[in-house]
Amino acid sequence: MLTDSEGLEVLVEEECLKLLDSASLGRIAVTIGAVPAIFPVNYQLLDGQILFRTGEGTKLHNASDSAVVAFEVDEVDEVTHEGWSVLAVGVAREVRDRMLASSVLERLPHPWAPGRRNHLIAIVPEFVSGRRIVQVPQPS
Amino acid sequence: MLTDSEGLEVLVEEECLKLLDSASLGRIAVTIGAVPAIFPVNYQLLDGQILFRTGEGTKLHNASDSAVVAFEVDEVDEVTHEGWSVLAVGVAREVRDRMLASSVLERLPHPWAPGRRNHLIAIVPEFVSGRRIVQVPQPS
Repeated sequence: MLTDSEGLEVLVEEECLKLLDSASLGRIAVTIGAVPAIFPVNYQLLDGQILFRTGEGTKLHNASDSAVVAFEVDEVDEVTHEGWSVLAVGVAREVRDRMLASSVLERLPHPWAPGRRNHLIAIVPEFVSGRRIVQVPQPS
Repeated sequence: MLTDSEGLEVLVEEECLKLLDSASLGRIAVTIGAVPAIFPVNYQLLDGQILFRTGEGTKLHNASDSAVVAFEVDEVDEVTHEGWSVLAVGVAREVRDRMLASSVLERLPHPWAPGRRNHLIAIVPEFVSGRRIVQVPQPS
């Protein structure tokens, strides 16, 4: 098992993509006028791209088009304190082809939050990394 | 109830701080050599500051000292799809006063992940904002 300098298990890319595919709620980091921000989004991994909806003119819509963004997904068990996190970094772009966007939007799960979200953003991950926290018994 | 352009309930600062105080796992967005990254961290809110541990020489330690960072906490019910998210933005600084750092580190919960994390980072929020997703019955 490969571990990093913090003692966390390093996940290989294939496992990271599997975990990304297994979840539906992630967090995206963008910059709005030089100030960083994080938004939770419902997403889906399709053909290696991270896809999510945004609403016209929203902060997230404006900030995530043609920007380098970080996208993170994690799952932590509050009881066992075991879990994993996956980080993907890449350029986010709005899918402007209406036919393509409509067809993908139909396949995406209905967004939880109210409000119209008919713009589709795709992140093409340039690199993906992941870590797993596994609790090992402490030497007594 | 004040709602934003996306139809989400806008939370006042007092409520945001209460929610920040109620959770223990957040995500921090930093920049590492112009590339954005997000890390999950165990944190605690003390005297209005967001405090978390890092290990010497880790990416997070290097990137979060004297940097403007975004810190996000959310809680979403996977069944009802209701939840909230709070975003804090501010300068992160390592607490270099050893006496102060030790005394605060003692009060922080034990980190879940293995590895030594004896550096204390404090984020002083410059501004805090929050949203709540409340499901309302759709008109039929």
